[in-house]
Amino acid sequence: MQTMRIVFFLYDGLTTLDIIGPHDVLSRLPAVEAISVAKDKTPLNADTRALGLTATHTIAEIDSCDVLVVPGGTEGTRIAAADEEILAWIRSMAETATWITSVCTGSLILGAAGLLDSKRATTHWAAIDLLAGYGAVPTKERVVIDGNLITAAGVSSGIDMALTLAATIAGDDIAQAIQLGIEYDPEPPFDSGSVDKAAPRIVELAYGIF
Amino acid sequence: MQTMRIVFFLYDGLTTLDIIGPHDVLSRLPAVEAISVAKDKTPLNADTRALGLTATHTIAEIDSCDVLVVPGGTEGTRIAAADEEILAWIRSMAETATWITSVCTGSLILGAAGLLDSKRATTHWAAIDLLAGYGAVPTKERVVIDGNLITAAGVSSGIDMALTLAATIAGDDIAQAIQLGIEYDPEPPFDSGSVDKAAPRIVELAYGIF
Repeated sequence: MQTMRIVFFLYDGLTTLDIIGPHDVLSRLPAVEAISVAKDKTPLNADTRALGLTATHTIAEIDSCDVLVVPGGTEGTRIAAADEEILAWIRSMAETATWITSVCTGSLILGAAGLLDSKRATTHWAAIDLLAGYGAVPTKERVVIDGNLITAAGVSSGIDMALTLAATIAGDDIAQAIQLGIEYDPEPPFDSGSVDKAAPRIVELAYGIF
Repeated sequence: MQTMRIVFFLYDGLTTLDIIGPHDVLSRLPAVEAISVAKDKTPLNADTRALGLTATHTIAEIDSCDVLVVPGGTEGTRIAAADEEILAWIRSMAETATWITSVCTGSLILGAAGLLDSKRATTHWAAIDLLAGYGAVPTKERVVIDGNLITAAGVSSGIDMALTLAATIAGDDIAQAIQLGIEYDPEPPFDSGSVDKAAPRIVELAYGIF
């Protein structure tokens, strides 16, 4: 089996769970080289500024991959999506990648790179109206697959996206073993995880927090 | 409202989802100072070595907190649990903390620090037999609360633990708004996230991967 290179893209101000969910799933696949890539190797702030992430490689060092994962965020994502150096690198990754994936507003970076044109795609519920501006077909599902593009909804949905992709890459048994390894048997104490399930006052509150 | 200090403890070789799950929940609480603490501020390797984490503060800089979150891992956790400087710092944190929490094998670090004696506690399913060695009462639940100690099961369970704690600290509405903010409406593609649900061959496979 040929080694697959999985690249986790990092940038300043990202939402860390967006990238760490897929990281903790896809890095466990057999026969993969899992690496992270950013403009440079200095510590990058989480959107919360409560910790930092560092990449193993710079974008200048990596010119191809099999799987690309692009996380979202808020202000940091807007800056990344306007950074021509980042967008050019993402386009070059897309030329070789078997799978191009995003979590949350990471899809807006893919959109800015021109990769969503006429594609079914999703993003965080609060940003779904922005997708059409990139020519995408906004799709309110947790994980949306269109050809070799997989976009996930908000933040935690990256775990479900990555398990789905893991099964496609390595088969259901491996994906299930990874699910067991991360003990992903969710027991949310509330049922307010989607905008269709949360009460209107909770939706209002969420806009104030994020 | 007084500002609560929430400390995410980091060390080399940690499982990143263990800490990032709680981080992306608890950092969104109102009126909190969310910081990360490690022995020093150099980048720490994830257990996968696919990326690094950096702390905002060193253990020498932080001598009290309201909430402590201790993540797990494998070899890195064994090293941390044998590091007297780390254990002494954790004991000192426990003196002031309102809540002492762990995810996955992070509970074994709490145990090594002497904080689990006669306490109901949990950990990753593959490590549950180790808890009794620290005087704990092993408890196979996803989130276990005993007094001011909250231990969570493997890796992804930290999200459920943190939402439970968020509700205790700030009320159900805020916790639900955070759940919505991280769009935590899980749709795992398989139902193999606990050792009771996974087929025996999946359990075997998981031991080989992690």
